[in-house]
Amino acid sequence: MNRQVVRYVTGRILMIVAGLMIFPVLVSLIYREPIRYIMSFILTAILMLGIGFTFSRTELDLHKLYAKEGFVIVSLSWILVSAFGALPFVFSGDIPSFIDAFFETSSGFTTTGSSILNDVEALSHSMLFWRSFTHFIGGMGVLVFALAILPSSNSGSVHIMKAEMPGPTFGKLVSRLSSSARILYVIYIVMMLVVVFLLWLAGTPLFDSLLLSFGVAGTGGFGIVNGSIAPYDSSIIELILGIGMLLFGMNFNLFFLVVNKQIKQTLRNEELKWYLGIVGISVGLISLNLIMNSMPLVTSVRDSFFTVSSVITTTGFSTALFGDWPLFSQLILLILMFVGGMAGSTAGGLKVSRVVLLIKSGWAELKRVVRPNRIVTVQFEDKMMEEQALNKVYDYVIVYSSIFILTMLLVSFETPDFISAFSTVAATINNIGPGLGIVGPAYNFSMYSPFVKVILSFIMIMGRLEIFPILILLTPNTWRKQT
Amino acid sequence: MNRQVVRYVTGRILMIVAGLMIFPVLVSLIYREPIRYIMSFILTAILMLGIGFTFSRTELDLHKLYAKEGFVIVSLSWILVSAFGALPFVFSGDIPSFIDAFFETSSGFTTTGSSILNDVEALSHSMLFWRSFTHFIGGMGVLVFALAILPSSNSGSVHIMKAEMPGPTFGKLVSRLSSSARILYVIYIVMMLVVVFLLWLAGTPLFDSLLLSFGVAGTGGFGIVNGSIAPYDSSIIELILGIGMLLFGMNFNLFFLVVNKQIKQTLRNEELKWYLGIVGISVGLISLNLIMNSMPLVTSVRDSFFTVSSVITTTGFSTALFGDWPLFSQLILLILMFVGGMAGSTAGGLKVSRVVLLIKSGWAELKRVVRPNRIVTVQFEDKMMEEQALNKVYDYVIVYSSIFILTMLLVSFETPDFISAFSTVAATINNIGPGLGIVGPAYNFSMYSPFVKVILSFIMIMGRLEIFPILILLTPNTWRKQT
Repeated sequence: MNRQVVRYVTGRILMIVAGLMIFPVLVSLIYREPIRYIMSFILTAILMLGIGFTFSRTELDLHKLYAKEGFVIVSLSWILVSAFGALPFVFSGDIPSFIDAFFETSSGFTTTGSSILNDVEALSHSMLFWRSFTHFIGGMGVLVFALAILPSSNSGSVHIMKAEMPGPTFGKLVSRLSSSARILYVIYIVMMLVVVFLLWLAGTPLFDSLLLSFGVAGTGGFGIVNGSIAPYDSSIIELILGIGMLLFGMNFNLFFLVVNKQIKQTLRNEELKWYLGIVGISVGLISLNLIMNSMPLVTSVRDSFFTVSSVITTTGFSTALFGDWPLFSQLILLILMFVGGMAGSTAGGLKVSRVVLLIKSGWAELKRVVRPNRIVTVQFEDKMMEEQALNKVYDYVIVYSSIFILTMLLVSFETPDFISAFSTVAATINNIGPGLGIVGPAYNFSMYSPFVKVILSFIMIMGRLEIFPILILLTPNTWRKQT
Repeated sequence: MNRQVVRYVTGRILMIVAGLMIFPVLVSLIYREPIRYIMSFILTAILMLGIGFTFSRTELDLHKLYAKEGFVIVSLSWILVSAFGALPFVFSGDIPSFIDAFFETSSGFTTTGSSILNDVEALSHSMLFWRSFTHFIGGMGVLVFALAILPSSNSGSVHIMKAEMPGPTFGKLVSRLSSSARILYVIYIVMMLVVVFLLWLAGTPLFDSLLLSFGVAGTGGFGIVNGSIAPYDSSIIELILGIGMLLFGMNFNLFFLVVNKQIKQTLRNEELKWYLGIVGISVGLISLNLIMNSMPLVTSVRDSFFTVSSVITTTGFSTALFGDWPLFSQLILLILMFVGGMAGSTAGGLKVSRVVLLIKSGWAELKRVVRPNRIVTVQFEDKMMEEQALNKVYDYVIVYSSIFILTMLLVSFETPDFISAFSTVAATINNIGPGLGIVGPAYNFSMYSPFVKVILSFIMIMGRLEIFPILILLTPNTWRKQT
């Protein structure tokens, strides 16, 4: 591996994130907070700038950046950014324990939204802002952002973007990669600002609107008042958030097509149809189930739409305490936790396209068994899927499941029941936020030991980066010198 | 499909099972039971003989038996045999509801061992015998038995044996299929008799020894006293049963090799090494976990060995109430429920070989990602696995998971919590018997509605036949006339 390239790009990333700390500093100034808050950010920024500068002193030829370097840069950057991003919480004293702060920041950048805070409202404005801002930065990708603003992007950078973008496929929008990244970010920011504006129109305070929109855009789920979204108690706000989350759970290439007025092509997208179909059926089934359990019709539809949208996009905002819903509804939610959003969105989970490929592949095998003389192939997005592409999906699911089971075994020492252990891992590896049982929407992750908190932080980062980059980072062979 | 062949062979099977009812009649005579017990069996046998005779009147050329007919014959026979086998319970009044009796008999033939009886000891001797005897018949396969005793076996019969034998691969022992079936049955009966003898030596009453051995041989788990194996309270009996279950969870081809003194080849078997390795590690981990929870060393090892052996072989006998064990131990047991025994054994579950192939395939993908330039293949039993064979395994797991999830959603309307719903399906589709939660070793399946009982009966049969035969039976296309 070319260590110099890794050091160079990682250094740059640290400097960029340090620069982004200007925003919480501004918030701190606006709200006239005690000086220690500003100092916490400035101190952290200085540290990051110093290390970043040391790492990236010598200008480098980025053409020496191959797939392996791309994976290592991405995973290393995410871990470092989460660790350094935790420092302001520690320095200011708002989250005194570094491990707690690391958990919270990993949860932020990975847009998970699991929290260790019992009382969110005790945080200062600037810390609340930084916490939700990490959702926004992490949503589209820390490194995609870097590509968007760095001038010298080139052929090597595609490996970075591939490693960071979720989903089994990766498509460039336009031929130049940095332009692609820039277009993505413009769409991302404009859509986010629309959500801010609508929320504000609906009566949400501007500060709240902004922070909630960060969560919606990144499909993270940090609440900013105790009780997540429930305390706002407004069906209009829930509707805006619900539709917003669904939009950010879609493949961003589709918005690019819409901007280019290729509406027909957008509507032909097969993954989109499945995504909307799954949402519709889930809302229908859960509403019915809630009505059968004598919940009023309107509340049932309202709560199930918001919750389904929040869970399938792996955002994790909550209005209803779905841990108290009937088991059937909980099972549907659990299934959605694994499905996740569309590939190329800011959402987590296995991604709709992978799940669809699995279902289609199983269905094809059924047909083959029933009619052994016919040749049955798997079609997706109007293309025939090759065996090799399908195998990639299978193997990903196996590796994912293995890590899932091992983590659950570790967590089981500190959980009272199966559903808590299961949903703790499901909520973190799929970047959702709340789970069921002791990590349900009414609770948080504070009761876990520091050891488990660190494990879960890594699981969140693994989930966000789709596992392989982190595994490559941890392989000794990767670090063999070869400049 | 050739319906005549299906009718003919299915008719023969009904007649054979009718003939096997001579044994419970003998038991009834020995214990001088009221005449209604003998009459229940005789009436059922007459019914089966009548229908069987009508079905198989005309002698047929079995060379017209292809894969599709094989699947249909096997699934149809299993459903019919379970339905008719339920009649003696109903006629005698020991299990008055037909649906309950159907559940109990399906559970018996599929060697599941899930029961709807609150008080097993209330059954008469002949009914207890018949109930456990179904384990013995179903273990090695109803149709394999038929092949062993029918004189006119031929090339077509291989499709029957393939459809009924569990596991991804199928190997004939000797060139003539009926000889293979006969050898299997001789090994099966001799090993069973050894277990009977040892149990009797250890002080178990002869009747109990026989019935428990039926359960061990078929890896079914019907207890014959309330509380399963716990009331015997003998570590020697538990040891005999524990080792016995492990042996019957092995591929029977291995015993054939041993009989032919090919010990070296037996020990080289890769699936066997994994199977024993998984058992060893599981016993170790659970023992440690129990000791950490201040259970005495000896009890920990004794209980964990028996339970691991019972669960991985999907037998389902219980001594300890493992539903009260710490969560970590319960999770290990849950994993073992899915692993199941070796292919070609009488055990259920996914089978060790499938799980090993999945793990190896995931591991190969990891290697591929870390070192993209190397060609990595999957080796199993000293052979390179072809992509196509691996895909069969994947697709099986997908179909299996889909049916699992759908059944869990159905069951969820009648279960209070996730672990109960999850383990109800896990215990039935994997042919284990008891699960966790409300279907844990201290409880039974009696509280489910008739609807769910019927569904679960079919799930047990699906699990035993590895899904596809039942799906083919249910496909309308299968029934199109084509004589």
